[in-house]
Amino acid sequence: MTKKRLLSGMRPTGPLHIGHLVGALDNWVKLQDEYECFFMIADWHALMSEYASPEDLKENLINNVIDWLACGISPSKSTIFIQSHVKEHLELYMIFSVITPLGWLERCPTYKEQLREITNRDLSTFGFLGYPVLQAADILLYKAHVVPVGEDQLPHLELTREIARRFNNLYPVRKSISIDAKFSNGVYKKNIFPEPVALLTKTPRILGLDGRKMSKSYNNFIAVSEEPKNIRLKVQSMFTDPLRIRLNDPGHPETCNVHSYYAVFAPERKKEIDELCRKAQIGCTDCKKELAEILIKFLEPIQKKRNELLKNKKQIFKILEQGSKQAGCFASKTLSEVKGLLNLK
Amino acid sequence: MTKKRLLSGMRPTGPLHIGHLVGALDNWVKLQDEYECFFMIADWHALMSEYASPEDLKENLINNVIDWLACGISPSKSTIFIQSHVKEHLELYMIFSVITPLGWLERCPTYKEQLREITNRDLSTFGFLGYPVLQAADILLYKAHVVPVGEDQLPHLELTREIARRFNNLYPVRKSISIDAKFSNGVYKKNIFPEPVALLTKTPRILGLDGRKMSKSYNNFIAVSEEPKNIRLKVQSMFTDPLRIRLNDPGHPETCNVHSYYAVFAPERKKEIDELCRKAQIGCTDCKKELAEILIKFLEPIQKKRNELLKNKKQIFKILEQGSKQAGCFASKTLSEVKGLLNLK
Repeated sequence: MTKKRLLSGMRPTGPLHIGHLVGALDNWVKLQDEYECFFMIADWHALMSEYASPEDLKENLINNVIDWLACGISPSKSTIFIQSHVKEHLELYMIFSVITPLGWLERCPTYKEQLREITNRDLSTFGFLGYPVLQAADILLYKAHVVPVGEDQLPHLELTREIARRFNNLYPVRKSISIDAKFSNGVYKKNIFPEPVALLTKTPRILGLDGRKMSKSYNNFIAVSEEPKNIRLKVQSMFTDPLRIRLNDPGHPETCNVHSYYAVFAPERKKEIDELCRKAQIGCTDCKKELAEILIKFLEPIQKKRNELLKNKKQIFKILEQGSKQAGCFASKTLSEVKGLLNLK
Repeated sequence: MTKKRLLSGMRPTGPLHIGHLVGALDNWVKLQDEYECFFMIADWHALMSEYASPEDLKENLINNVIDWLACGISPSKSTIFIQSHVKEHLELYMIFSVITPLGWLERCPTYKEQLREITNRDLSTFGFLGYPVLQAADILLYKAHVVPVGEDQLPHLELTREIARRFNNLYPVRKSISIDAKFSNGVYKKNIFPEPVALLTKTPRILGLDGRKMSKSYNNFIAVSEEPKNIRLKVQSMFTDPLRIRLNDPGHPETCNVHSYYAVFAPERKKEIDELCRKAQIGCTDCKKELAEILIKFLEPIQKKRNELLKNKKQIFKILEQGSKQAGCFASKTLSEVKGLLNLK
């Protein structure tokens, strides 16, 4: 049986951090065996928010790919590629642009939310409004059946499905009548694009050092490539239970961000820490010291592989070139079908 | 002295008609000697309005190019190319998209006008809103100094200039200090994009057979390739002076559409016709018969060349291939500079 296709991607807006690792990458690594995976560095999408200072995009891009590989994404299992290196993304984006009603985009809840919440950059641009249209092109170019998404991304995927439906309705595939065909006025109809479905996997979500969403812009993250001494410093700076003021006050681990890290990175130790904290038998400093060492150990094999990969950057470029070629091969086939349907070839 | 560069284009939405001929093409033919001309078949722009039935775009495209060549556009003087065959158009479009404020587009007067006036197709799409952004990419990709435009297109060109300015401000070219440099904080600043200026040439404007704007959608046009018998029929159907009911009523040539055609296609005969009409010494039928023959004779050499060109379609494809390659060469140089400035290379 042929595997179903899956597409996912990341924007190279900063270093990969442990939030990405447990929230997405670990999941990708597992999905590689079950699906035919396309993993994309979404550099056009990154430009939409980083246009005012795009100077780090290139370095982020390479570093992110190195992190992917270090975490277990394998070029022999999956297609790893750069969005802007496959020209068909923009071509399908343009074709989808002309069939996508403005209102669909203006009403998109994530769009309205981001305009409201992201205040440190001006996102009221034409390009940013088209974010989900480009996303639809990314996904449908590979006729992906599934897309691993978080709940917050569901409206975007719904838009992809709507765009697929609109395209399929506007430009139906007509073939001569065959026995197993679906009929509509005696004409065989088949859709060019599948409607991709969400793959909602429960992945752990960890917060940033300060309790907000872990993000480069809040500078509250621990990078996958973070050096041990920095991990120690950063973990030591984490917010803990605000009600535990003195060392012998009993703690409330259920409200402590440090504790939630234990749940993800050392579940076997979590119960003991929980008890020690409630009984005030462990102080926050010691608790964090232990967590730092756990994280250092957790990241050690990844960082080791990372350092090996860094020694041979040529190899990375080769993997990306090969991946973009592979992706381009698939993409150009889809685009050729699309152009055929529109009689643009 | 090197020539200034000029870009212009047409959307392949229908056959070229005599309105295009006297309003634009004749002008282009003259401009070829004074400027380094890039003439573009704007197929992406055409798709923005024709997406619901794009099946004729390909045929229109070839026919338009044949008309251009028949009218005197020369591939040895000018670069003739297809927009969608030069991938850099969409790349620069995307880059401009992310720096163009939505409000600039929403407030564009031609945009609001077209949404209001074009009722036979749904233009409230994301793609159509970006029409002037793509136009800016078309023009600036070739660093065009001048753009021949009609007055109605001036707001679009103003947007191109605004986008050029915004780009130049966001991403200034910095070089080491040199004596003839302009200084800004001790750093040499140079702009990557010139601000193109409008070339407002007075060209005759002829109305359609029914007195409205000549347009394919109104079916009130005479094609450059129109057969003589059709020209006779079409001219005979033209609206004339509504106040001249009987043959011996004196006419009012200044309000007669047929008369305005004389001004363009037979200015030497205009004065006589004018007098004959006012004195009711020529009837509308005869006046139109004469005009039809004038138009047939006017189009004859063009149609002759057209028929020759049609015999060798391979040659047309070769011209387009060569032109798109030439344009692509220039375009990729510009895009390389752009990506260099954004550190995306």
